[in-house]
Amino acid sequence: MAPHANEVPAAGTIPKKIQAVANATIADDNVWQWIHDVTASSPIQPPVNLGTGFIDHNPPAFLIEAHKTALDSVDNNQYAPVPGSDLLRETIADMYSPLYGRQLDPITEVCVTNGAQEGLLSSVLSFVQAGDEVILLEPVFAMYVYQIKVAGGVIRYVPLRPPQESMTSTVSGNDWTIDLAELEQAITSKTKMIYLNNPHNPLGKVFTVAELTAIGNLCISHGLVLLSDEVYERIVFPQDSGSQPDTPTTHIRVASLSPEIASHTITAVSLGKLFNATGWRAGFVIGCEALMRPVISTHLVLAYSSSGPAQEACAIGLREAERQRWWAVNAADVGARIRRLCRALDTTGLTYVAPASAWFVFVNIDAIKLPENYPYPPIVINEGTRDWKVCYWLVQEFGIASIPGSCFYGPENKRLGERYLRFGACKSDEGLELAAQRLLQLHQHVSKAV
Amino acid sequence: MAPHANEVPAAGTIPKKIQAVANATIADDNVWQWIHDVTASSPIQPPVNLGTGFIDHNPPAFLIEAHKTALDSVDNNQYAPVPGSDLLRETIADMYSPLYGRQLDPITEVCVTNGAQEGLLSSVLSFVQAGDEVILLEPVFAMYVYQIKVAGGVIRYVPLRPPQESMTSTVSGNDWTIDLAELEQAITSKTKMIYLNNPHNPLGKVFTVAELTAIGNLCISHGLVLLSDEVYERIVFPQDSGSQPDTPTTHIRVASLSPEIASHTITAVSLGKLFNATGWRAGFVIGCEALMRPVISTHLVLAYSSSGPAQEACAIGLREAERQRWWAVNAADVGARIRRLCRALDTTGLTYVAPASAWFVFVNIDAIKLPENYPYPPIVINEGTRDWKVCYWLVQEFGIASIPGSCFYGPENKRLGERYLRFGACKSDEGLELAAQRLLQLHQHVSKAV
Repeated sequence: MAPHANEVPAAGTIPKKIQAVANATIADDNVWQWIHDVTASSPIQPPVNLGTGFIDHNPPAFLIEAHKTALDSVDNNQYAPVPGSDLLRETIADMYSPLYGRQLDPITEVCVTNGAQEGLLSSVLSFVQAGDEVILLEPVFAMYVYQIKVAGGVIRYVPLRPPQESMTSTVSGNDWTIDLAELEQAITSKTKMIYLNNPHNPLGKVFTVAELTAIGNLCISHGLVLLSDEVYERIVFPQDSGSQPDTPTTHIRVASLSPEIASHTITAVSLGKLFNATGWRAGFVIGCEALMRPVISTHLVLAYSSSGPAQEACAIGLREAERQRWWAVNAADVGARIRRLCRALDTTGLTYVAPASAWFVFVNIDAIKLPENYPYPPIVINEGTRDWKVCYWLVQEFGIASIPGSCFYGPENKRLGERYLRFGACKSDEGLELAAQRLLQLHQHVSKAV
Repeated sequence: MAPHANEVPAAGTIPKKIQAVANATIADDNVWQWIHDVTASSPIQPPVNLGTGFIDHNPPAFLIEAHKTALDSVDNNQYAPVPGSDLLRETIADMYSPLYGRQLDPITEVCVTNGAQEGLLSSVLSFVQAGDEVILLEPVFAMYVYQIKVAGGVIRYVPLRPPQESMTSTVSGNDWTIDLAELEQAITSKTKMIYLNNPHNPLGKVFTVAELTAIGNLCISHGLVLLSDEVYERIVFPQDSGSQPDTPTTHIRVASLSPEIASHTITAVSLGKLFNATGWRAGFVIGCEALMRPVISTHLVLAYSSSGPAQEACAIGLREAERQRWWAVNAADVGARIRRLCRALDTTGLTYVAPASAWFVFVNIDAIKLPENYPYPPIVINEGTRDWKVCYWLVQEFGIASIPGSCFYGPENKRLGERYLRFGACKSDEGLELAAQRLLQLHQHVSKAV
């Protein structure tokens, strides 16, 4: 656990009474900073950081040009309206109404936020208070955990389950399934929310109509908010290994499945991820008025409003991307990078979760034979799971950074996660080529039969 | 009070169990939206909205150009480091170290945030939890109240007191004083923070060395965090009506007064307000490492990071503004607009609080004679304070919007605030001219001797 503020060496003297509240240090133990530091000091240079979701190529030129033009307008440079600029909200409503199968009201049903992240946090803080329970599906993005802790909520974890053949062969992320009975058992009288990520990071799973309908109906019957993080909605690849009869080839929006499910659902979309502009902190949430009214109010306190120039640029960019069918171009580009990374992994003899969407490959590390008596630093030893050792060893010996799989699990299910590392493919051609070259040597450390 | 989500007409059906938590609706009753709506429908067109702090002129050209250039860099368009870009943090440390009288560490003592607002909220959420008390000085910016409520904190209000002559004549904001005995009496065993705004909105008061030292020493002796919102630090005017012997002519940074005070203080600065770019959502907080470590962690959860291109632009813009001494140019510009508004107010016979800083004039409305049986809408009647009536009447009869003074007071001291309206001077020449013309007619409704 992270130390409290008053246990940290201070610039000046600091009185004992000044003490950080527990939720202020929940992100101190974040693995990203550790990976960054270890990678920077790896003896193998230059390192290839496949750990983070940091993209190393630019947004489309039409978006950048629109942003530059937006900066010439006085209005764009001052506070945008709290729930977002009129133009952007109207553009979102026009674009998403057909996708949701109902007319979205741009005034009452859309809120532009500082990235999808702030929209998700505004949603959590609007409906979850101290002691309320939220259900998360593992593996899970650590940020959701932090958000629920800030609200004082209690997390109930329900793991997605890999198919039996995943022990010995590469499977599709779509083949990981949810045990619906286990999900319903996790619902108590204190449950307020099911927090879903679809398409899923790190599995690359695109949830099916059947799965989403079942989850949505649970929210209806138990009176829960369904918070659906859909930041990878536009990065879905053609399928070649899905085995479920209703495996989707495109993203399914849970809020589109029925009016009743829609009335329980808040959906978050990332303009940064849509456009490879993660540094712009632009995103939005959509939901019916009754859900969005408190979300907009919370957003006012968390952010007041989002970047005016970025909003103008994104409004123009959304229309241009639709016109150019740019989403398909970008999804094909990400898909090509994913396939390149998967081909490199195939040379190692390791199996992995082949993603149907998003930027990541969840690699099974059971077959990696770690050397005996390797000098791991205390942080790796103390973590106590095998994935941290493999992660550290890969950085030191191959110059390749990844994220330990146990970081995507709660305390009870770390053992499910320690069998994996997450690799990111949102990297340059040069970075992926270097990774591929280095991975060619890894097969010597992989057991042929697990 | 604002209704809960489940009492609002919904797009779909919404189950009773889905209910917004109390803190999600705290900003629903915000006066800004009401002012906006009433002003838009005023019979006097075009209305002059002196209510909000919305600036209607652009940031300096060198800042806009730097932002456009920043958009061409891949790195700027992706996630910035959580506590801010290296260049911006180094620039801030270089620029503020002499002002604080100590070397600031850019890595551990500076965090770039989504506007000063998010930095302030990250600070509140880092040190205040449910039941903890925070002291606010009235009049107070409503956002502080919302922030403390999100943290579950309890507010203790301590009013700044006007000098006796303010009943009949215009005084300086600097002449409003704090009763230090009253402040100390408000401190209990549950107090965690004194939340200060210096320079002060809406009084335009620049706190003196003596006042700040006394407040800082209270924080030392009682072990409190001093959260100092200094977003108007660069907008301080030459004084002509200050009566205190130590009236400052420049802004005093409380964290510069002693190492012990510095070790208790978090200071928030707004890059948006520094540069007339409030829509960029850029700001930062400064404090010693022991205070900043939890703040950076909370910031990670609230925002992850701030806009990359805006950070790059602000880093370059800060150096250029220093080189051009642009701060003085901008302060003189704001000062001229303030004087113009004050001259217009002088024609009415009303007295006001002459600001030493910031964008606002707090106008005493005791002498305004409201017509009898005027048709106020229910929201104005229900509010129950006279300032809302005067505010509404000015919009309807003169097309001039302002903010009711009681909005800057807690529930117990509304009567202190109902004697004032806040007028903003951060408006175009045309807007200020139109306001001046209309105010010429107001003297007919002002009592000559109060």
